[in-house]
Amino acid sequence: MRSMMEQEKLHDECGVFGIYAPGTNLADICYLALYALQHRGQESAGIAIFQDDRFQLYKNTGLVSEVFNEKTLSSIKCEGNIALAHCRYPAEKEAEATIVDAQPMVFNYLNGLIGMTYNGSLVNYDDLRYNLALRGSVFQTNSDCELMMNLIASYAQDDLPGALAKVMLDAKGAYAIVAMMEDKLVGMRDPHGIRPLCLGKLDGHFMLASESCAIDAVGGELVRDIAPGEIVVIDKDGFKSYGPYGKQPHFCIFEHIYIARPDSTFDGVNVYLARHHMGKILARESNIDADIVIPVPDSGVPCALGYSEESGLPYRMGLLKNRYIGRTFIQPTQIMRDKSVHLKLNPIKETLQGKRVVVVDDSLVRGTTSRQIISMLREAGAIEVHLVLGSPPVKFGCPYGIDTKPSQLIAVKQTKEQICEYIGADSLHYLSIEGMLQATRQDPNHFCTACFSGEYIVKPCPFQNKK
Amino acid sequence: MRSMMEQEKLHDECGVFGIYAPGTNLADICYLALYALQHRGQESAGIAIFQDDRFQLYKNTGLVSEVFNEKTLSSIKCEGNIALAHCRYPAEKEAEATIVDAQPMVFNYLNGLIGMTYNGSLVNYDDLRYNLALRGSVFQTNSDCELMMNLIASYAQDDLPGALAKVMLDAKGAYAIVAMMEDKLVGMRDPHGIRPLCLGKLDGHFMLASESCAIDAVGGELVRDIAPGEIVVIDKDGFKSYGPYGKQPHFCIFEHIYIARPDSTFDGVNVYLARHHMGKILARESNIDADIVIPVPDSGVPCALGYSEESGLPYRMGLLKNRYIGRTFIQPTQIMRDKSVHLKLNPIKETLQGKRVVVVDDSLVRGTTSRQIISMLREAGAIEVHLVLGSPPVKFGCPYGIDTKPSQLIAVKQTKEQICEYIGADSLHYLSIEGMLQATRQDPNHFCTACFSGEYIVKPCPFQNKK
Amino acid sequence: MRSMMEQEKLHDECGVFGIYAPGTNLADICYLALYALQHRGQESAGIAIFQDDRFQLYKNTGLVSEVFNEKTLSSIKCEGNIALAHCRYPAEKEAEATIVDAQPMVFNYLNGLIGMTYNGSLVNYDDLRYNLALRGSVFQTNSDCELMMNLIASYAQDDLPGALAKVMLDAKGAYAIVAMMEDKLVGMRDPHGIRPLCLGKLDGHFMLASESCAIDAVGGELVRDIAPGEIVVIDKDGFKSYGPYGKQPHFCIFEHIYIARPDSTFDGVNVYLARHHMGKILARESNIDADIVIPVPDSGVPCALGYSEESGLPYRMGLLKNRYIGRTFIQPTQIMRDKSVHLKLNPIKETLQGKRVVVVDDSLVRGTTSRQIISMLREAGAIEVHLVLGSPPVKFGCPYGIDTKPSQLIAVKQTKEQICEYIGADSLHYLSIEGMLQATRQDPNHFCTACFSGEYIVKPCPFQNKK
Amino acid sequence: MRSMMEQEKLHDECGVFGIYAPGTNLADICYLALYALQHRGQESAGIAIFQDDRFQLYKNTGLVSEVFNEKTLSSIKCEGNIALAHCRYPAEKEAEATIVDAQPMVFNYLNGLIGMTYNGSLVNYDDLRYNLALRGSVFQTNSDCELMMNLIASYAQDDLPGALAKVMLDAKGAYAIVAMMEDKLVGMRDPHGIRPLCLGKLDGHFMLASESCAIDAVGGELVRDIAPGEIVVIDKDGFKSYGPYGKQPHFCIFEHIYIARPDSTFDGVNVYLARHHMGKILARESNIDADIVIPVPDSGVPCALGYSEESGLPYRMGLLKNRYIGRTFIQPTQIMRDKSVHLKLNPIKETLQGKRVVVVDDSLVRGTTSRQIISMLREAGAIEVHLVLGSPPVKFGCPYGIDTKPSQLIAVKQTKEQICEYIGADSLHYLSIEGMLQATRQDPNHFCTACFSGEYIVKPCPFQNKK
Repeated sequence: MRSMMEQEKLHDECGVFGIYAPGTNLADICYLALYALQHRGQESAGIAIFQDDRFQLYKNTGLVSEVFNEKTLSSIKCEGNIALAHCRYPAEKEAEATIVDAQPMVFNYLNGLIGMTYNGSLVNYDDLRYNLALRGSVFQTNSDCELMMNLIASYAQDDLPGALAKVMLDAKGAYAIVAMMEDKLVGMRDPHGIRPLCLGKLDGHFMLASESCAIDAVGGELVRDIAPGEIVVIDKDGFKSYGPYGKQPHFCIFEHIYIARPDSTFDGVNVYLARHHMGKILARESNIDADIVIPVPDSGVPCALGYSEESGLPYRMGLLKNRYIGRTFIQPTQIMRDKSVHLKLNPIKETLQGKRVVVVDDSLVRGTTSRQIISMLREAGAIEVHLVLGSPPVKFGCPYGIDTKPSQLIAVKQTKEQICEYIGADSLHYLSIEGMLQATRQDPNHFCTACFSGEYIVKPCPFQNKK
Repeated sequence: MRSMMEQEKLHDECGVFGIYAPGTNLADICYLALYALQHRGQESAGIAIFQDDRFQLYKNTGLVSEVFNEKTLSSIKCEGNIALAHCRYPAEKEAEATIVDAQPMVFNYLNGLIGMTYNGSLVNYDDLRYNLALRGSVFQTNSDCELMMNLIASYAQDDLPGALAKVMLDAKGAYAIVAMMEDKLVGMRDPHGIRPLCLGKLDGHFMLASESCAIDAVGGELVRDIAPGEIVVIDKDGFKSYGPYGKQPHFCIFEHIYIARPDSTFDGVNVYLARHHMGKILARESNIDADIVIPVPDSGVPCALGYSEESGLPYRMGLLKNRYIGRTFIQPTQIMRDKSVHLKLNPIKETLQGKRVVVVDDSLVRGTTSRQIISMLREAGAIEVHLVLGSPPVKFGCPYGIDTKPSQLIAVKQTKEQICEYIGADSLHYLSIEGMLQATRQDPNHFCTACFSGEYIVKPCPFQNKK
Repeated sequence: MRSMMEQEKLHDECGVFGIYAPGTNLADICYLALYALQHRGQESAGIAIFQDDRFQLYKNTGLVSEVFNEKTLSSIKCEGNIALAHCRYPAEKEAEATIVDAQPMVFNYLNGLIGMTYNGSLVNYDDLRYNLALRGSVFQTNSDCELMMNLIASYAQDDLPGALAKVMLDAKGAYAIVAMMEDKLVGMRDPHGIRPLCLGKLDGHFMLASESCAIDAVGGELVRDIAPGEIVVIDKDGFKSYGPYGKQPHFCIFEHIYIARPDSTFDGVNVYLARHHMGKILARESNIDADIVIPVPDSGVPCALGYSEESGLPYRMGLLKNRYIGRTFIQPTQIMRDKSVHLKLNPIKETLQGKRVVVVDDSLVRGTTSRQIISMLREAGAIEVHLVLGSPPVKFGCPYGIDTKPSQLIAVKQTKEQICEYIGADSLHYLSIEGMLQATRQDPNHFCTACFSGEYIVKPCPFQNKK
Repeated sequence: MRSMMEQEKLHDECGVFGIYAPGTNLADICYLALYALQHRGQESAGIAIFQDDRFQLYKNTGLVSEVFNEKTLSSIKCEGNIALAHCRYPAEKEAEATIVDAQPMVFNYLNGLIGMTYNGSLVNYDDLRYNLALRGSVFQTNSDCELMMNLIASYAQDDLPGALAKVMLDAKGAYAIVAMMEDKLVGMRDPHGIRPLCLGKLDGHFMLASESCAIDAVGGELVRDIAPGEIVVIDKDGFKSYGPYGKQPHFCIFEHIYIARPDSTFDGVNVYLARHHMGKILARESNIDADIVIPVPDSGVPCALGYSEESGLPYRMGLLKNRYIGRTFIQPTQIMRDKSVHLKLNPIKETLQGKRVVVVDDSLVRGTTSRQIISMLREAGAIEVHLVLGSPPVKFGCPYGIDTKPSQLIAVKQTKEQICEYIGADSLHYLSIEGMLQATRQDPNHFCTACFSGEYIVKPCPFQNKK
């Protein structure tokens, strides 16, 4: 559930999935799981299955629907016991145009073949890589995933859970890893639990996934979230947990605001309900005198529904989103671009004419899209346009896997009043940090709010140092 | 805005578009128009531009985003004055797998080159074709479009408007045609105005489109609907109208219920508002005691919002639609299919648990999807599920371009009570024919309601005869 | 067997093939036949099979190996009785970039479905088309094939052989047609037999093909050539012949010189032997004092072998042809082009150094390739280079299906001496017209030699008029 | 220049190419070089160019003409100074279906980025890999190339020539490597010079290539062969040579017999002339009473020409090879396969009828193709068929990069008489080992003849041990 113009949005870097399920159709299960995690990564997709002493692997750039067709999905169908799946947004340091960095990655080291999928971002990547190179390590990508593998290989004399526990001491940052060897599925979540990872069950078999919606999609049941710093091993003897070697949890609050799917649940909190609640609190905090509430589809919908319910203002469809604009949409020439803003998001004039409109979006990053939307609403006949946002101002970069660069954040450089003027709204309303945390109905300390508050919990932190 | 499972839905057969605009980027304009009309036809897409004495043409099977990429779109860019665009669902008698039947079609006849796009269905196709073959006509497809061209060629000694007026006497059925010759754009709508066609303006240039949303998408303004039986010619001297040779209008009410985009407007009536109003009337007609109202996304949303507003029951997201399931989704094996119903449409348990739920969809065709949805809602914790539909029972086949076959319509064979039991609902509520017509706030005689009422206005009618 | 640089060569316009063989694997047979006829047309390929009351058809632009893969070939496999196959070079008036003109073409007319394949060129196309358009005919291409179909449809009240006999009176030019209807395979060759067509037999089933090598390729046996002006019908009752309505035969001599495959045989004369004999006669006619004979591969090989045998000069490989340069070779930039002449045809220095070289090619069209080759041979150490050609000077355009334009023929504008100087040879030797005809060991009147002699046998002839 | 049925032939594993040429169009040069080396590897192709501090790299599975089109070639065009190119047959232990093992491979190690291309085979791969894994090395492929890189990285404290000299002591087998770092191109050939590598010059710039034909193709000049055990470095200061750390040369004689292109030259010996000479010696050794000599095209042609010249028997084209049968040819069903043997190689009956035929091929591996050919020749009318081969019996596996498995070699299991009977020849004649060596006019000790003699020069040797 993405908002209008993907390119203006923050994005997470990956969806990970793994399952240990002998005797099932692993390729189909992974395929379904990838569709459910597609919103977490749309640049590449891949599935690997362990069969006998080798991998069946297919991965490529593109959406799941582009990467997997009858032929490519058939190519990996086999009698395996364990499988991994992954979809990806490339991290800034990784290659974009090739499939070199696509995951799952497969490696061979002292203890045999291993497949890995990774979501997150390390803050001490450069130091770790230099030290490994000194020992003779060779790298084929700039990915955290390959670096983590070389770290693991440097502890190859330990058993895998032991090696991972040592890796956890070396690696600083946010990550969720799902890996497999010939006889086991392994999961690990960073000590602060910044990135999500949960455990599910399907017909008695265990699986790991970034979000619970993937577990639903394959017909399974959510068991629980993996704990911060927890290492889990799933094999023929069932499920074993090591650690958790975690610290105070700091789950990324942006998963609740924008990244995760509304039907996912983290630590017992449903994302749709959290967003609905944020809308309600926002209605109380903003208290705008208007005629109707409309969402920016799709990401503003839950928050707008909450806003409407709390404020009593009627909820309307004011903007129609074109469902067919995809990755391959060709940007028209400038002159057509001005005309075609109605293609992606067309106002329904009959809804807006003569109305004072509250328009609800999840967050404001650069402001250019909001500016276009507000202008469009006025042309369609709205007499007032108030923008309300289901999150506080995004003022700080994220080194933990959300690709926010301070230079692109309008709230870093401009005051609320300047932004309001730039986007052309009659008024602009952010959700407060307190309101945001309250909407989750969890301990406020449970979350990482660094992008809003600048309070970075894992150091060294590149963005913090540069301040 | 399509509902969950495309294959269970009725579909219209085409979107047509044409523009006369010297000095503009015709290829880009057509490309944008096709994206806006994509919901009317997803099997093939094409654009033709008249340049000097020849056509630049590209068409292929697939979605607009599959057919047109940088290369194929560039291939038709030229200094032309007139262009056509078309997207298509194949009619039953046409070829599916090849691009032979894709449009625009281009022909050469006595008076020169002509390009044609067509939406609709003729009821006397067989008779017309036999008569033409007797005269020596050769056909390369089974399409209405090619047949209409041969009819026109048989009046080649007349000027084009004159020939079209004669064709209108021969051809029985529903159609909207946009054609072009070297120096003019031509449009024609069947005498009952069953299929839609409207006139727009962009920077002083005229265009014709199946729906007004296409005119919005290219930055233009809706001028008016083409009248039933009207023939229009647009050339360097501007706009000329011939006729209308029409009769009592009978516009397809199913455009308002399901086919058209909510932001389109026909004869001054906005589709979203009509659907919202249908929801309100439904609330009055059904009067269900429940806790929440949820839509089947996306097509049930406007109706559900109207229902919620009129009934006072809170509106909730109860089902999350996966936006990434597209044409290329591979049907999983049976065992996975049972599990993967959650992939396409996943219930949000936290919304549904312990609730009496009103679920709103636009129409009921076969019933299998509704059955799965209701079962899913119950598993997610709903204690009552009431299905309400924004249309009357679909009981009759449509010979005018909507691909309904009586054998596939559950309402033909079963009573309301049987259907309710089959789908597993606590209660089932249709909108009445009167309520449906009332929601449009137009003269009830303005519409063709044959699929609900069996009152066919154009004869001979194959479905009627078979009764 | 093509010479070095395709773009400099003349080309024929098509290979046609048809078979009536119930109970066999028609798709596979056609696929093999197309590979054997590939040298006659490399721009598009297609196969059509008649099954029950419809066609299984697949055609596309490209080589047979590009058009047909496991998937596309499987798509046409069926239980049919009759099949057609075609590969094509587009005629000048036809569309190049699309598959609209690809064959087999399939049509529906008064007497039912008909599939057609065509090789040749009509000289009165424009007149025929105008007359048909006056009667109401609609054309979708500029192809002879579609025009012939409309002519046939205009005689639809006659039976097919009767209609074809009438068509033969209207149509002027060179053609070989293979067509099929539900119950029969039909073949026709123009009254002069300019383009080839032969009859073969495979396990008791009849087939028709442009060249006998296609009959060999499917494991069949050549029965005989179809006579000029003969119409043949093959159905469940076997083979019937109508006519021949032919005149004096005038078979295209260029088939023997360059177009046909060396293993094909026309009217009992094997192409390889004819070329070998041409080489012998050339040796006698030219009588050059030299050290070695080398061919321009591949088309110069048979002639060079004959030359070597008759002259006693040793035959050597002096130029190595790169087998991997195909349709998709990207022309390098100018600076690289100068360097890369060695890519397509690399001299073997050790063969050439210090030698007086006779280099043999089949024909000389523009001269640019010969110029490059001779320069290359000198750089590689040849001390003399004598170019001998297995045909007379090409001085006239061909309106019968070989795409020669007088403006591109070097022999139209320059004398033998000027050409020799331009290409940089020490001497230049053409085969005489008499020698050429003698090498076939047939009646000299049997052939059309218009491109060498200017004696056009079918009129009106566009090239002739323009003189 | 490949013989009829690729799948029956031995194949080498790669073509390597590198150039240091600032200010030139490196992408185009590499593209041309790959076309010239295509016969050495048809499973994947790739080009890498070093630009500033990163690589422009494109590689994929398929032929050069499939991998590189306008778009992919443009994608790597840049202002770089150094480039590598590679085409590949996968070694047995490598992955076939994916591009993971395609080269050039690019790595990052302590001293920076490095690109590598590799041709050959290591005999102590397993030992080397185990030792590296113990130190923490991680492998992503089973390729020699990646292993060599990890070996180099283990000597990362040395400069590159120094590290390579140490690698040469560890690595046992046959190899030619071309690598590049930011500022230099590097080449290395194994101590016995089993696999070829030569140095060329183009407009003052140096390049390295597997065969001299690639140097010709880009318009350059052959300078000399790289010596066995020589390491060369080319940078802005020109060309430097280290070593040679070589031993007695043992160049692979099979390069002369079949693998290399006839226009390539190794150590001053032209391949075409060597084959021509082999043909002459064969004629003397076999001394057959017959009427004509025909080659199996294309690989038997040079040898057959020599045979004809020495024996005085006339040389004829007896078999026509279809040039369009490529990688994508679909194997027809069994029944069609029997018929379609004529598709790939069609006999010219007029040449063969009533003749005693000597048919010349380069070598005999499995015998199945020869058997089909001989049967075909007899059916076409040959009254005697004598098979002569331009090499001795292939009796031993090759661990040095030619993919011969003893189990597939007919000469391992059967006597000459048994083979002659199996293939159906009237007589069978091999070239003697002495004759073969004599034809090269070089020191007989200069060559590795292990596949004929069983004398393996580099140990440990897996095939030898298994005897």
